[in-house]
Amino acid sequence: MLPWLLALTLAALTGFTVGYERTERNCSISPPYVPSTAVNSTLQLQDLRKKMFPLKISAYIIPGTDAHLSEYIAPRDARMTFMSGFKGSSGTAVVTRTKAALWTDSRYWVQAEREMDCNWELQKDQSVGSIVKWLIAEVPKGGQISFDPFLFSLKKYEEFAISLESTNITFKSVPNNLVDEVWKNRPPLPPDNLIRLPDRVIQRTWQEKVQDIRRQMKETPYEPTALLLSALDETAWLFNMRGNDIPYNPFFYSYTLVTMNEIWLFLHLERVTDELKLYLNSSCRGPLCVQLQSYDSVLGQVQKYVATPLVKMWIGADYTNYALYEIITPKEKLLTSSYSPVLTTKAVKDETEQRILKEAHVRDAVAVIQLLMWLEKVVPEGKETELTAALYVNMCRQKQKDSRGPSFETISASGPNAALAHYSPNNETSRKLTVNEMYLVDSGGQYLDGTTDITRTVHWGTPTAMQKEAYTRVLMGNIEISRTIFPSGTRGVNMEMLGRKALWEVGLNYGHGTGHGVGNYFGVHEWPVGFQSNNIPFTAGMFTSIEPGYYKENDFGIRIEDIAVTVPAKTKFGNNYLTFETVSLVPYDRKLIDITLLSPQQLQWLNNYYETIQRVLGPELDRQKLSEEKVWVQRNTAPITVAESSSNISSSSLPLLTLVFALIQSLL
Amino acid sequence: MLPWLLALTLAALTGFTVGYERTERNCSISPPYVPSTAVNSTLQLQDLRKKMFPLKISAYIIPGTDAHLSEYIAPRDARMTFMSGFKGSSGTAVVTRTKAALWTDSRYWVQAEREMDCNWELQKDQSVGSIVKWLIAEVPKGGQISFDPFLFSLKKYEEFAISLESTNITFKSVPNNLVDEVWKNRPPLPPDNLIRLPDRVIQRTWQEKVQDIRRQMKETPYEPTALLLSALDETAWLFNMRGNDIPYNPFFYSYTLVTMNEIWLFLHLERVTDELKLYLNSSCRGPLCVQLQSYDSVLGQVQKYVATPLVKMWIGADYTNYALYEIITPKEKLLTSSYSPVLTTKAVKDETEQRILKEAHVRDAVAVIQLLMWLEKVVPEGKETELTAALYVNMCRQKQKDSRGPSFETISASGPNAALAHYSPNNETSRKLTVNEMYLVDSGGQYLDGTTDITRTVHWGTPTAMQKEAYTRVLMGNIEISRTIFPSGTRGVNMEMLGRKALWEVGLNYGHGTGHGVGNYFGVHEWPVGFQSNNIPFTAGMFTSIEPGYYKENDFGIRIEDIAVTVPAKTKFGNNYLTFETVSLVPYDRKLIDITLLSPQQLQWLNNYYETIQRVLGPELDRQKLSEEKVWVQRNTAPITVAESSSNISSSSLPLLTLVFALIQSLL
Repeated sequence: MLPWLLALTLAALTGFTVGYERTERNCSISPPYVPSTAVNSTLQLQDLRKKMFPLKISAYIIPGTDAHLSEYIAPRDARMTFMSGFKGSSGTAVVTRTKAALWTDSRYWVQAEREMDCNWELQKDQSVGSIVKWLIAEVPKGGQISFDPFLFSLKKYEEFAISLESTNITFKSVPNNLVDEVWKNRPPLPPDNLIRLPDRVIQRTWQEKVQDIRRQMKETPYEPTALLLSALDETAWLFNMRGNDIPYNPFFYSYTLVTMNEIWLFLHLERVTDELKLYLNSSCRGPLCVQLQSYDSVLGQVQKYVATPLVKMWIGADYTNYALYEIITPKEKLLTSSYSPVLTTKAVKDETEQRILKEAHVRDAVAVIQLLMWLEKVVPEGKETELTAALYVNMCRQKQKDSRGPSFETISASGPNAALAHYSPNNETSRKLTVNEMYLVDSGGQYLDGTTDITRTVHWGTPTAMQKEAYTRVLMGNIEISRTIFPSGTRGVNMEMLGRKALWEVGLNYGHGTGHGVGNYFGVHEWPVGFQSNNIPFTAGMFTSIEPGYYKENDFGIRIEDIAVTVPAKTKFGNNYLTFETVSLVPYDRKLIDITLLSPQQLQWLNNYYETIQRVLGPELDRQKLSEEKVWVQRNTAPITVAESSSNISSSSLPLLTLVFALIQSLL
Repeated sequence: MLPWLLALTLAALTGFTVGYERTERNCSISPPYVPSTAVNSTLQLQDLRKKMFPLKISAYIIPGTDAHLSEYIAPRDARMTFMSGFKGSSGTAVVTRTKAALWTDSRYWVQAEREMDCNWELQKDQSVGSIVKWLIAEVPKGGQISFDPFLFSLKKYEEFAISLESTNITFKSVPNNLVDEVWKNRPPLPPDNLIRLPDRVIQRTWQEKVQDIRRQMKETPYEPTALLLSALDETAWLFNMRGNDIPYNPFFYSYTLVTMNEIWLFLHLERVTDELKLYLNSSCRGPLCVQLQSYDSVLGQVQKYVATPLVKMWIGADYTNYALYEIITPKEKLLTSSYSPVLTTKAVKDETEQRILKEAHVRDAVAVIQLLMWLEKVVPEGKETELTAALYVNMCRQKQKDSRGPSFETISASGPNAALAHYSPNNETSRKLTVNEMYLVDSGGQYLDGTTDITRTVHWGTPTAMQKEAYTRVLMGNIEISRTIFPSGTRGVNMEMLGRKALWEVGLNYGHGTGHGVGNYFGVHEWPVGFQSNNIPFTAGMFTSIEPGYYKENDFGIRIEDIAVTVPAKTKFGNNYLTFETVSLVPYDRKLIDITLLSPQQLQWLNNYYETIQRVLGPELDRQKLSEEKVWVQRNTAPITVAESSSNISSSSLPLLTLVFALIQSLL
């Protein structure tokens, strides 16, 4: 699945209103046209402005996130949606005394036009710079812009603050969330209990992890006395626990404060079973006893801790919320790094995690292969749609051992829908699948032992030359990253152009990132691993997606996504080099590969991959008694033979061929 | 030439003391051994500490730069050298009450051990983090670290300030430079007058440039009222003027303040001729009249301007000194961007600049070819050294039209000396050139129409297999960058791994950057163009070096450096793609190329390059009546024929060959 953070603007989307005219609002006619899917936001806006007025707030910023800066948020945190009606997973809303505006990225522009009424203007450049530019134009000089500090990361806060520094507009937080104050039917907390992971999926106990983190705290020259964890995956990882508060991610609302002598875990106490209390050693006081505290007390407790003399608090600046940051004063009591040592430690999987994450991918491959095999059979009958295909793959995964549901909403997209990089079908948009269109399916599963994410693009009829060329060049990008050898410590962002190079050669490109980390029964977009500029350098044992693509507006979309693990590479002269080992095990659509474009090295990589699929997947298919699937896999992973590749008389072989023909002539 | 900023640690250098034992200090024996090349620093340190004491300064930082953060500095700015004896071009010195330490990068470690006495410790990690770590250990709690704010960029200041924020050490500037106060024989300013560039090398007049910059000021949403230029190349570029204050760079001490109605130029007034005054319209007051102000008045004048109501000052944060930054208060009067619009505008050469910069490279190639041809003849006689070769190439350049001397100190390095990436020979280190060693020459010239920079590596005898493989892979890196096609706006840092990929495949690498901008009779390292993370994205019309390398400790060094310009590329499907056109025109050493390693595309690029050299250089050699050179060029650029490349039976061709042999067999 595409990295949510960096889904860049796909110009693809603006024109996509043909045929859907009446489903989108039209605010430029009088009276404005508002579709039935839009939410009437007049009352909410009135209520909010009433709260803004006495506080002298000229503009109030409403980010679409929660206090943990989570990717997926619980319904009770969907404040942006409550205010605007817009249900997309990424966006920022701003309400002034007279206007309301929503910023979201290209994948959601059409959706926003369907879901918002004409109280809201849609802004299409989601950068802080664009929002600030709008704010400078709208807020009077001397005015005040406010926000809930729990919904801003320190980093985001600084971006806004620096951009507004040279204006005379005030930018400051207000303690209570003004949206919550006017949100009468705000959903309650989910009641589910928390769980601990079974021993069979664990190598490091929480006590070992805590001790490792304390060692890292001791090793920094800044002598922090405490580490504050506020991302949900930090606490879940540290204690080998999982929950169910957030869609798709098995996380639970929590904060953790680790000092050299104490551990404070902030969470909703009513969900902690006696068994968990025992597991956490919560009845004692000592370096390896967890003191349970109520979730809402975190601000007060951190404030109290910071008031102690000679303490210093370490936080991850990229994702700790500004509410926690602003109470850590004076600033010599604060130590920031982009990521906490928990996130950087978590990024490198231990042996058990590597093994079970690979195992989860074997079972996951079975489910995806079942989908592809089924579609091949049923699509020509003309009864299946994007939606039924998405349901089918979920069902196939559900049958696999340790399944815990999808790891994100399946992207099942045919023809032009696939050109929308993050499209998911609904009743209104779902297309019938046919042999005349390309089909893209990006899906993943949660398993107790791992999280998966894979994209395959197929064609059941006859692809055009352009489709074949584009697909092959996307595949070449995937292969070029996968087979590259690089020094340990190389940043993904410095290699990711290998995923684009074959496309660039013919003037094609894609508007999203090239890969992101994945976890063990965890986030499907696990930071800070991947190919973005704010990802950490690759070392051995990291899992990342590799997912180049190509999207042709109003026509088709291609993405080929695999998960790979960084492994040591043997080289002729050097040590400490790495390469990728692909752990996703689903064949690519052979019909879409133009073998003449591949270099001999790429072809060899492909045949090796086919061989790996057969070797690793075969026994699993046997075990599950899936003989039809096995035949399908064997057919789709048969090695590409010399004879087949001999059609590869590309320009690259011409000098050699010239020689050979001369040789033949002299022989005759 | 290598980018000075990012010459990373080459592990190569630590072991390089064999045979030079007595030339380096040994502070671990008693009494310590100090070579005659070292400077006795006891008195300077005593004097400086006397100044620090009454100001309660625990540590004083002495950067090796000037108030314009210049790469090369005038002798009067060599404060670090005056204090420590160390003459290297990059470093930072710190003096505490009891200790003195110097940080420099790997290329200077040996030199520092020769030039410093035992008052100084040598620190090998030049990062701010490393300096701060040392400071935290050495400065008592509550102590104060100080510095001259003219010698710190805003960015460097912030790096220190942020790193020291969570300690209780004070970090603050002191107005007068304490080193200057104790430096009795500080060299005076050079007396040379300034010049304006002749019309034949100019497309845009200074008035046009000022108007373009004002247009860009108007276009920013932050409404700056003034732009402050403090990098020396900013002012020189804006007014099409040059000077002689700094070695190798034709710059002069200056600042410029541009408002919508006025232009203030701060410089040493005694060097401005009447002709220049006329040229600058300095006797009037108006938007296109330049008001000349004394260089030393800049701080006062900026302060006065900032005190005016409703003004806002725009500065380039990456290089404006902290002295100027700290007087721009309150902060809403300040607008920062990494680079000023002058630097980003200058980065794209206009048509005239592109044409004449290419012409300068044609003449420059003649000089380098004369060197290579001469060495080929004379090295076997055994009388030439690194130093005589460096002198020879300078002499060849001097003979070329519009020559203005070298653009940096020539790196002329044989055998193990070439493994030191920035080595320049002196009487002590200069090696005799022999047919048994590889030789690297990295040199460049200043011409009235352009600045050049080129590196060639040659072998006059029989290279080893390892030397050939390493050279070929460096060349493959150079070619892979040169021939790549990429969307306009791509960052160099995201492509530079193409320069390393062929090396990485066999576990080789290099520890420096891959390229930097060059100017028109200007800096040989012209920011902000290049392949580093703080360079701006590539657009058409930018000139950059491309210079991968490989260095084998105590053995040999390879670097292949060309200058290339970004030009539009035609692609099958897309628009707005770019590629590189190499403008350096000197053949590579054919003896060192293992053709079997090259891909057919790389071989084709090479033959095209050879053809370009013949086509472009031939007429110039005719014009200069250099027939021997012409024969040499023709021999060294003869196309590599199919027969020659047919030895290229790499694994890549095997499937095809198998087919071919089967075909032959069936024919026989």
